[in-house]
Amino acid sequence: MIICRTINDLKQQLRELRKEGKSVGFVPTMGYLHEGHASLMREAKANNDIAVLSIFVNPMQFGPTEDLDRYPRDEERDTALAEQCGIDIVFLPTVQEMYPHKPLTSVMVSSITTRLCGASRPGHFDGVGLVVSKLFHLVQPDRAYFGMKDAQQVAVIEQLVQDLNFDLEIVPCPTVREPDGLALSSRNVYLSAEQRAQAVVLSQSLTLAEEWIREPGMTARRLLDRVKDHIKGAKDAVIDYVELLKFPSLEEIAATERTDQLNGSVILAMAVKFGTTRLIDNSLYQPTGGVSHV
Amino acid sequence: MIICRTINDLKQQLRELRKEGKSVGFVPTMGYLHEGHASLMREAKANNDIAVLSIFVNPMQFGPTEDLDRYPRDEERDTALAEQCGIDIVFLPTVQEMYPHKPLTSVMVSSITTRLCGASRPGHFDGVGLVVSKLFHLVQPDRAYFGMKDAQQVAVIEQLVQDLNFDLEIVPCPTVREPDGLALSSRNVYLSAEQRAQAVVLSQSLTLAEEWIREPGMTARRLLDRVKDHIKGAKDAVIDYVELLKFPSLEEIAATERTDQLNGSVILAMAVKFGTTRLIDNSLYQPTGGVSHV
Repeated sequence: MIICRTINDLKQQLRELRKEGKSVGFVPTMGYLHEGHASLMREAKANNDIAVLSIFVNPMQFGPTEDLDRYPRDEERDTALAEQCGIDIVFLPTVQEMYPHKPLTSVMVSSITTRLCGASRPGHFDGVGLVVSKLFHLVQPDRAYFGMKDAQQVAVIEQLVQDLNFDLEIVPCPTVREPDGLALSSRNVYLSAEQRAQAVVLSQSLTLAEEWIREPGMTARRLLDRVKDHIKGAKDAVIDYVELLKFPSLEEIAATERTDQLNGSVILAMAVKFGTTRLIDNSLYQPTGGVSHV
Repeated sequence: MIICRTINDLKQQLRELRKEGKSVGFVPTMGYLHEGHASLMREAKANNDIAVLSIFVNPMQFGPTEDLDRYPRDEERDTALAEQCGIDIVFLPTVQEMYPHKPLTSVMVSSITTRLCGASRPGHFDGVGLVVSKLFHLVQPDRAYFGMKDAQQVAVIEQLVQDLNFDLEIVPCPTVREPDGLALSSRNVYLSAEQRAQAVVLSQSLTLAEEWIREPGMTARRLLDRVKDHIKGAKDAVIDYVELLKFPSLEEIAATERTDQLNGSVILAMAVKFGTTRLIDNSLYQPTGGVSHV
């Protein structure tokens, strides 16, 4: 496994491989890798000749009051896990390498970014759009792998790729969970033991909603109320948002709309704070049947 | 010479050539080609294995009151000239092919786009940033060729390429002029015989300014006044802007600053209307010596 810390080094390594006609699978991450990332890395390696991982905590996607400074890092463990998963090249740039000057260019996706985390974290998806565009140009992958835990990110990046004709395929991969259902996240390490025990309400409510959404006569408002009530059963849970939207357009569903008659894919997405730690989770449903996005 | 009207056809043609390791030079245009475009096409062919031309009148870079509908087109003459210049592939997409849906993604360059044509044509450079990003992803050139007549466009695209790490080189090429100095432009066909004769004041003033800018004690304000006075000598000329800025940053130069002592490259840029036809021109100077941008 080769570790590249500079853009020039990365480009040189990739140039050689591309000359040989090798296909490239790419997993962009912010590091502190867990089994969710591992599933992406294995998928990238299984379906491409070469698997590239990037680890870069992108300051542009953090708000001024967010957790950039305390975002967890562990380069040694990350590279060991990457090697186990068959990664060929790890790109590990510094902030200076990625942003030698303040960028004047912005890459913004409208509409899809106005709700959910886009509303709670202003500018977050502009930072994601910028760094993903840069990384796609640096790695030039055939396929890029993203976890569906960040479903809105997947929708934003798919739109970006389509609108700008990026020559690659976005491969969304299922959320990986702890045995009790908690979605894996680098931020889970922030949780106290008590918060960790309570955090199971997110995935529990998503599983319960799978039944509720199909109940004859169920409406969006009543479904969301039930989900919120379930989450509030955890005494330290503070709801940021719980929303039911069309997927992948993230268009609104009226409060009075009957969920048991919804066509196509819908997403139930939530962000819940435990103390200073903000967790997100989501699930896709096809209330009237059909095939899931992932 | 191959003409591709669809993205799929273009991609297939390029895939074959890229497998053979051929380098690609790219000239994006809006068609109605003249000798200025021809110089870009010849340059692209001389310095790359394959030369690709795109002809696409991009609606996104026209304002609602601008000349999109009457923008001149002549596909037959354009393809004949392209062939003469050694172009291998012409990409000639429809609007539907380039924008099958209203794009939600925007690519914007700040600061550099606030002055000159960016001020006169709000949204123009956002449309340029979007279409250039799309075309770069479709063609994936090694080098892309742009005329310095659109100097601000060159500055914007160079910033875009740098900020987003596009893997290509921007090659700015000198403005091509009529024997009397008028910069070639597809819009010159709009001019009446009388307007055409008067339009020479643009390039004349740029040539005169070459001397004026070095006059001991000359200031930016006095230089601009002289240039404007010269342009106003043409009775139908209506000045949109005449500005002296640093290049390529397009940062302001104070009115009282002495031009004979300016370091680095500066640009004198102008937009002048004759009737409904808006012409632009510019020149770069190094008042205290140094090497020109082009």
